Amino acid sequence: MASEKSFAKGSAAPGPLAKGQIRIYSMRFCPFAQRTRILLNAKGIKHEIVNINLKDKPDWYLQKNPLGLVPTLETPSGEVVYESLITSEYLDEVYGDIKLIPADPFKKAQQKMLLEDYSKMIPLFYKIPTAKKNGEDILVMEEELKNKFVKLNKELVNKKTKFFGGDAITMIDYMIWPWFERLDMYGVKHCLDSSPDLKDWAERMSQDPAVRATMHPIESHKAFWNSYFDGKPDYDYGQPHVFS
Amino acid sequence: MASEKSFAKGSAAPGPLAKGQIRIYSMRFCPFAQRTRILLNAKGIKHEIVNINLKDKPDWYLQKNPLGLVPTLETPSGEVVYESLITSEYLDEVYGDIKLIPADPFKKAQQKMLLEDYSKMIPLFYKIPTAKKNGEDILVMEEELKNKFVKLNKELVNKKTKFFGGDAITMIDYMIWPWFERLDMYGVKHCLDSSPDLKDWAERMSQDPAVRATMHPIESHKAFWNSYFDGKPDYDYGQPHVFS
Repeated sequence: MASEKSFAKGSAAPGPLAKGQIRIYSMRFCPFAQRTRILLNAKGIKHEIVNINLKDKPDWYLQKNPLGLVPTLETPSGEVVYESLITSEYLDEVYGDIKLIPADPFKKAQQKMLLEDYSKMIPLFYKIPTAKKNGEDILVMEEELKNKFVKLNKELVNKKTKFFGGDAITMIDYMIWPWFERLDMYGVKHCLDSSPDLKDWAERMSQDPAVRATMHPIESHKAFWNSYFDGKPDYDYGQPHVFS
Repeated sequence: MASEKSFAKGSAAPGPLAKGQIRIYSMRFCPFAQRTRILLNAKGIKHEIVNINLKDKPDWYLQKNPLGLVPTLETPSGEVVYESLITSEYLDEVYGDIKLIPADPFKKAQQKMLLEDYSKMIPLFYKIPTAKKNGEDILVMEEELKNKFVKLNKELVNKKTKFFGGDAITMIDYMIWPWFERLDMYGVKHCLDSSPDLKDWAERMSQDPAVRATMHPIESHKAFWNSYFDGKPDYDYGQPHVFS
């Protein structure tokens, strides 16, 4: 697509999918949608991106996904799949010979348990900067986040592996990543200081080609975040101007 | 096992697993643990049940599952799996030739999306009776629950099938069931009145052998619920007295 400019309310719906492609409805700065975008890249799946203005959603988008959230996948036959973990599993199952989810049921369950635990810590990334902005005390929350990082760090130390599922990247790493790309934006990067193995993991992840293909410079993340906090999220921040 | 009496703090840990068996740590009246108990029955898996006093947990249990929740599965080789959906998927993958989760990735994703949506409605089952007990207005919450039931009803009407995944029971039905067994206990049975197809589904489910193997009479559910509300949950309600 020529542009990744976001579609807002009142916009015409994008045309039908190109043959053999899958479409992802996304938002450029959304960490949940990034999970699915990483999967698309990691598995080399031909896809097109349709970005949605999440504050002012097009009616046609709500018809595709009544929850109005991203990511949503749409296949050429019109099948619609949403929720970041469900879309990621779907892509791993449908595409490619090399699978990112372990075939062994126990290893698979282990990744899911870790991910379930991780999901419970995600709200902290938002609570801390919000509380800080409101001038509230954030020490207790920062302590909580540090402890969660230490726990993740211990996982790596006990496993003695480079990534959470072994010495190669697997599903769990990609699902955890997007919030680590934004640590400096949330203002919580220092919480990682007592977790050196986790820090190394993040450094390794930031070099992965699929991660890099979906990454934004931290300055762009911060600019979007500030616009979001001001109540005017700039979904198209940093996009080249396109004559359409 | 001779008794299903619950293990509390200070109790000796149960011995090693019998050969070829899997163990479930459960609580007799917990709907989440019931999901996994249904799976064990549906797939004909030899298992033993160790019930946990959730208010006064044994230390040895917290060593197995640091979250201290049920269900938890333990295999003869010492592998531990917890969380109701993760344990259920694990059992379906490891045991039996007939699978309850659809093999088709899109159908599987559809069940997961429906289940994700259902998970968001579960808190209502607890909020309504709690609010009622506190003398608060429950009309808005009841309306919300009715609408959620109507949405589930529409799923069945659109599919024109007896169950949510077709004319035979699949994973999604078992994962939804436990709260329907307790509708009368929550005091929300009337919320089902405008959802006749869903009512029929519940009636069919109540006849399923795996469901029946895990079921309690509604009087027992109510007795447990009352003891729970009084702050003294009677985990062993209705158990025969056992000389141990």
